[in-house]
Amino acid sequence: MAQAAQAPSGTRDLLADEVRRRKAAFDALSQIFESFGFDPLETPAFENLDVITGKYGEEASKLIFKILKRGVHEASGQADLALRYDHTVPLARVIGTHGAKLPTPYKRYAIGPVWRADRPQEGRFREFVQCDIDTVGSLSPLADAEIVLALAQGLGALGVHDCTFMVNSRKALYALLEVYDIDAAVGPSVLATLDKLDKVSPDHVIKELSADRGLTPDVAEALVGDIAADTTDRIRERLGTTEQGRAGLAEVDRLIELATNAGLAKERIIYTARMVRGLDYYTGAIYEVTAAGYPGSIAAGGRYDHLVAALGGPDVPACGGSIGIERILAAQHSENTEQRGLDVALTVLGGENRLMRLAADLREEGLRAGIYLGSSTKLSRQLKWANDQNARIAVLYGSDEQAAGEVTVRDMQSGDQARVSIDGATRHIRDMFASS
Amino acid sequence: MAQAAQAPSGTRDLLADEVRRRKAAFDALSQIFESFGFDPLETPAFENLDVITGKYGEEASKLIFKILKRGVHEASGQADLALRYDHTVPLARVIGTHGAKLPTPYKRYAIGPVWRADRPQEGRFREFVQCDIDTVGSLSPLADAEIVLALAQGLGALGVHDCTFMVNSRKALYALLEVYDIDAAVGPSVLATLDKLDKVSPDHVIKELSADRGLTPDVAEALVGDIAADTTDRIRERLGTTEQGRAGLAEVDRLIELATNAGLAKERIIYTARMVRGLDYYTGAIYEVTAAGYPGSIAAGGRYDHLVAALGGPDVPACGGSIGIERILAAQHSENTEQRGLDVALTVLGGENRLMRLAADLREEGLRAGIYLGSSTKLSRQLKWANDQNARIAVLYGSDEQAAGEVTVRDMQSGDQARVSIDGATRHIRDMFASS
Repeated sequence: MAQAAQAPSGTRDLLADEVRRRKAAFDALSQIFESFGFDPLETPAFENLDVITGKYGEEASKLIFKILKRGVHEASGQADLALRYDHTVPLARVIGTHGAKLPTPYKRYAIGPVWRADRPQEGRFREFVQCDIDTVGSLSPLADAEIVLALAQGLGALGVHDCTFMVNSRKALYALLEVYDIDAAVGPSVLATLDKLDKVSPDHVIKELSADRGLTPDVAEALVGDIAADTTDRIRERLGTTEQGRAGLAEVDRLIELATNAGLAKERIIYTARMVRGLDYYTGAIYEVTAAGYPGSIAAGGRYDHLVAALGGPDVPACGGSIGIERILAAQHSENTEQRGLDVALTVLGGENRLMRLAADLREEGLRAGIYLGSSTKLSRQLKWANDQNARIAVLYGSDEQAAGEVTVRDMQSGDQARVSIDGATRHIRDMFASS
Repeated sequence: MAQAAQAPSGTRDLLADEVRRRKAAFDALSQIFESFGFDPLETPAFENLDVITGKYGEEASKLIFKILKRGVHEASGQADLALRYDHTVPLARVIGTHGAKLPTPYKRYAIGPVWRADRPQEGRFREFVQCDIDTVGSLSPLADAEIVLALAQGLGALGVHDCTFMVNSRKALYALLEVYDIDAAVGPSVLATLDKLDKVSPDHVIKELSADRGLTPDVAEALVGDIAADTTDRIRERLGTTEQGRAGLAEVDRLIELATNAGLAKERIIYTARMVRGLDYYTGAIYEVTAAGYPGSIAAGGRYDHLVAALGGPDVPACGGSIGIERILAAQHSENTEQRGLDVALTVLGGENRLMRLAADLREEGLRAGIYLGSSTKLSRQLKWANDQNARIAVLYGSDEQAAGEVTVRDMQSGDQARVSIDGATRHIRDMFASS
């Protein structure tokens, strides 16, 4: 026999339990975001190619799935569409397309698949769900704080309670370069090296800064010493000597103040001078979230006031964040293996018409009722089916029962059986579920 | 200014109310299907090209969105993947891929987008949701009846109560050709012409059958006369003269018997001798559903015992149906224009920290609370924002209120205002919602 066809490399078929588990997570997130007044947005799976092209940098652009032109143009080998690579470029496009129809500010969430032709590996897929919230059109620090709170509550709804927000600011990062007199040309690589302080030792970082980034050993040591210190006092003091540094710290502190006043515990939102994120488009406060038991960062975000314009939309301020839902779901996978079975499995030994009615009545009561659809007339075979379906209860309606106008109701766990009138069977079974 | 970028031709951006309306419909359908014991299945947005190729016929194959190879192979202009064109081919592939892991029979539903490069027009999109339920691995007529019942209840959950199932059978259709001695070569076109009896007059159909299909006028007249008669007595009598005809009628009658016994009203499921559907892959009972107020058929299905094999899976019996969810949603569009607004809009005239806390408390109570994120310090401007958000209640916290430790709670419809202590504001507002 030929090898059975598989799902494409890097994609998954999601079977029943996995679909239900994911849907529960997405619904929980939606509900949290809705409570903050965020609106759902769904954009098409693909965009016109020119909307996507040139937005992600050279490396990333190789990972874009492009769609071939159709009809007589197919032979050209050219593409005119591309699969969604993230939710941000489509958001910028939507702001341009629907501007006037959208509320101001526009607060939206997007939970849906994006596609990237990354090399597939354990836990990395070519089709995966991204979960974004963004507020477009507000400069208010309340908007940033709202994103942080929505992320924190969203994580909580996913069962991730022990998380920590590391907060920094683009301005504070630039001030850092300023006060330590670091050349702008090496600035980004210096910051990227500093960001490794969460993984490697201060000594290692000092060595890299002086060997590879051209900092003098003195500067490298002072910088790392200030940043890796137990408190942020020294680094705060240094940053406080410049206007940019004061502005950056003010931004960080205001975000922390607003978030903690709204109920986020103080130990869960911390100024973290080494935390960088991408410098490409963030303009204000930035944050990254870690949690015990989860690898890497499980959420992140910040303010990016000119990104919408850079992506082809109007020049409007914006801030937003995203939850690494796939990473979280993967980490939780082993915890949840519950299968949804049938509530009631109806075996069939004749009397199909009456059994169809009984199944319909049970569904009316909100029960999940399935009827045997196989070809076996052996009860043992049918009970094996009921067992395979994880049924809590099986209904038997053999010739004895039919003659008496009754059914046998069997508890599949205990094996207990009871004969009840078929007309009263729905109530009987409903009561069994109500009392359990 | 340059023209703003648009969504690709034939696709839509789904804004808040539309997303919510669609999600409610999909969730309602899922719940019905689950109650019958159907399991959800989600397959990737694209399949390997060879899984899709050659499955849909020549015309349809032009409508498939193909994905260009990536990396160094992009320049070849060749495709290696294709977007999902329906849910049936992926189902056949899944049966092959996961066979042993799936329950027997495998009852699954799929509600998700498919992509077809049809010429876009009013109400026809290139990205649209299909909603399928199928039972794979059962020959039982109970399986067919279950599909009919699940479709009927699914339609009911969508608010379509007045629907009629027109039932026929592939065997009855072939028997029709047999008893009227119609050449097999013209058979399919004769049946297609007969199927027009729901739209055009019997005379017109008779004329087409004799002029274009090569039937003698006598045969055409007898055939149409029998089929268009007020009762099915005559056509039943004719079909009853052949074995194939009797088998076909038995199939139809058994389906009707099981469905009506399970509660479907007799007048809602009718043997319809002219009803054809595709002959290509149906092997048993077939049905099409119409409803007052909805154009064309809004659901359809049947038994197709060898389709899974023809589509690349194993040779297993199957039956299934699908609901024309996009058509139904489009027809209902004008009825539902409800917008989801904020429950509580918090204006900001200072006191942000306290307001953030109040907003969090209101969300804890299950209310949808948004805080003003604009730059205006004018209350009138902020109340306009609250109004634009369809807020039921606005909260005012000006310097007077701040000094008194109070807020003003304003009913946005009546304009009624009340001053309450800010610490009691959450309870006060919660009670306003509870009592309304």
